[in-house]
Amino acid sequence: MVRANLDTLRRSNPRIHCISNLVSAPLCANGLIAIGAAPIMADDLMEAAEITNLCDGLSLNLGMPNPRKLSAMLLSGVAANKKGIPVVFDPVGVGASPYRMKCAQSLMGDIQFTAIRGNLSEMKTLAGEDGHCLGVDAGQSITEENLSLVATFARSFAQKTGTIIAISSIIDVVSDGMEVYVVRNGHPMLSTLSGSGCLLSTIMTAFLAGNPDQPLLACVSALCAMGYCGELAAKTANGNGSFAVALLDTLSNLQGDDLERGAIHEVFWH
Amino acid sequence: MVRANLDTLRRSNPRIHCISNLVSAPLCANGLIAIGAAPIMADDLMEAAEITNLCDGLSLNLGMPNPRKLSAMLLSGVAANKKGIPVVFDPVGVGASPYRMKCAQSLMGDIQFTAIRGNLSEMKTLAGEDGHCLGVDAGQSITEENLSLVATFARSFAQKTGTIIAISSIIDVVSDGMEVYVVRNGHPMLSTLSGSGCLLSTIMTAFLAGNPDQPLLACVSALCAMGYCGELAAKTANGNGSFAVALLDTLSNLQGDDLERGAIHEVFWH
Amino acid sequence: MVRANLDTLRRSNPRIHCISNLVSAPLCANGLIAIGAAPIMADDLMEAAEITNLCDGLSLNLGMPNPRKLSAMLLSGVAANKKGIPVVFDPVGVGASPYRMKCAQSLMGDIQFTAIRGNLSEMKTLAGEDGHCLGVDAGQSITEENLSLVATFARSFAQKTGTIIAISSIIDVVSDGMEVYVVRNGHPMLSTLSGSGCLLSTIMTAFLAGNPDQPLLACVSALCAMGYCGELAAKTANGNGSFAVALLDTLSNLQGDDLERGAIHEVFWH
Repeated sequence: MVRANLDTLRRSNPRIHCISNLVSAPLCANGLIAIGAAPIMADDLMEAAEITNLCDGLSLNLGMPNPRKLSAMLLSGVAANKKGIPVVFDPVGVGASPYRMKCAQSLMGDIQFTAIRGNLSEMKTLAGEDGHCLGVDAGQSITEENLSLVATFARSFAQKTGTIIAISSIIDVVSDGMEVYVVRNGHPMLSTLSGSGCLLSTIMTAFLAGNPDQPLLACVSALCAMGYCGELAAKTANGNGSFAVALLDTLSNLQGDDLERGAIHEVFWH
Repeated sequence: MVRANLDTLRRSNPRIHCISNLVSAPLCANGLIAIGAAPIMADDLMEAAEITNLCDGLSLNLGMPNPRKLSAMLLSGVAANKKGIPVVFDPVGVGASPYRMKCAQSLMGDIQFTAIRGNLSEMKTLAGEDGHCLGVDAGQSITEENLSLVATFARSFAQKTGTIIAISSIIDVVSDGMEVYVVRNGHPMLSTLSGSGCLLSTIMTAFLAGNPDQPLLACVSALCAMGYCGELAAKTANGNGSFAVALLDTLSNLQGDDLERGAIHEVFWH
Repeated sequence: MVRANLDTLRRSNPRIHCISNLVSAPLCANGLIAIGAAPIMADDLMEAAEITNLCDGLSLNLGMPNPRKLSAMLLSGVAANKKGIPVVFDPVGVGASPYRMKCAQSLMGDIQFTAIRGNLSEMKTLAGEDGHCLGVDAGQSITEENLSLVATFARSFAQKTGTIIAISSIIDVVSDGMEVYVVRNGHPMLSTLSGSGCLLSTIMTAFLAGNPDQPLLACVSALCAMGYCGELAAKTANGNGSFAVALLDTLSNLQGDDLERGAIHEVFWH
């Protein structure tokens, strides 16, 4: 399944409109090319919708928000919904300021997202829940101990929003409101690379754009691909400088067969 | 000739004002240092013209346009023309939105460019021509088959605009409206690096600023240098991560003699 | 002392709010993670103060100024002063345009900086002095010949502003208005990497945030750490591409003991 999703993505070479941020824009653009997609960046309201109309997927990133970028994201999101292409939302640091929360609510009000990808803290903040309901430390990581609680949260938030909810951590949890998948790929070095979360969200957009008929599996495949490439890159990296280079190289050379063998995913709940 | 242009560029260490974009700004700045120039980035109308006045060349990039950046580009371009320093325009994705086309027309109306550097699709869009006049697939690549047609187009567009037209592809074509040169350096990996086109345009600006008395040859030398460094970098690269690193290293270490031997250029038409 | 400052920084893992620029944002974010801090980028007035309130240090960078960024810097700086966390100012290219000078004066009027870090030209421009008072070429480098003059200037400017003044060059000079320290770490390759000065300023912010009780020593340690990592990175680098990678890796792996041995600093004046 993961192999097929990667192969289909590469054959279709989907064009992805990215509204990104100052830190992760170069990494996201090169990561998209590496995985087999074609990035285009545009973040002004004067052209946002027209750019989206040329594309097969849209990736919206909340990092470093400002009114100009928010307008562009709203116009692009509405255009993507009209065209029927996948839209992924990455609520970067949504709890860091009231303005980020206000932007996120505005985006969620006007746009039907295909998937939302964030860490556990971001997703709980977005859902209006505080950390206590998931137990101590659950705000930080997903572990075997809180996995059932997080799966319940993900499924419920997915049902409420009609959106695939992908929560990435040591263990990743993803649900479309019916099924819940768990992905156990990944490496701690990913968290030492600024923008690796943004990159994961853009790669998820590419998998969705390449595999629009099986969105939940596309998200699972994206989580496996990114996590597995992180594992491979960590083998040769010696700090976050060489890790960034190795990650892009690994994504560039990722073969479907190898990914199929390396992917660690399971259906957690049917 | 190529050696001399590189040596003169390095001796003069020209200061280049870059108005770039979110994705390619770090690559362009480091690439300019590597080739022997001194970059300065400034993209606000509050200082654009003053920054240009300190510089020996100006590089304008259409990627991720917005009204603030457009104003800065117009002010800088006019200042560069007044000062008599080279101005290079890179019409990134000019066909991707009506706003990009409007920006490009506004820039071309107010600024006398020394050179415009883009791919074939961008240049045809800029010239108001569609792809059909150049034959099927000509919108994508310059090959031996359509080379004469592209050379005719480049020379005619250069005459009409009074600007050097540089079209980069598998084969590069550059004309000042009189002569047409062809450059056959390059490597497919360049197209896997986001911003490599932007980098080429900024490096062309550096060659022009270092060799203002022979602008056409300076553009030919820039195309040879970038293409040849791409060839060398591809030998050790293993994906677009290591390719970016190797490309900057190769530009840093490029010797005039080596470039002279590796450069593949010819006069196509006198 | 240097070892202790690094260890304390890493134990406290300070959160640093960076208002950076298009070129150096990815380098600064990854460099902060590498040295042991947690970066957060936010540059809009809609959230600037709130983001600062979450952080342990604030880094303000004058590169690529615009009115929106200036407003954000002012709001963040005032918030940092109220909260009592360190604020570092990097007057990138302050002499390059009247607007940069106007922004710098506005920031220095409203914000009490903990430290200002720049090269000799920037610092003299900021202080309203021209280069002649320090002798020919003094505008470019700090050498044994002009060291006493620069030390006098740094101490006097520090007294006048109530701010630690850190001037980085071949030799670095730093003063709190009482003592003057000299740091002799560093490598010429640092000047081939665009944004290495910005990175130094953000790392200084991290050292200050981790060691708020000894700000002058924290700045000395930051200069030693950055310079020493530059020396180590240069040993394996082969151009500014691999130098950037090696610098981040070296920062990632820097051990307190090793830094203590490699650091070259002295009290110049008590």
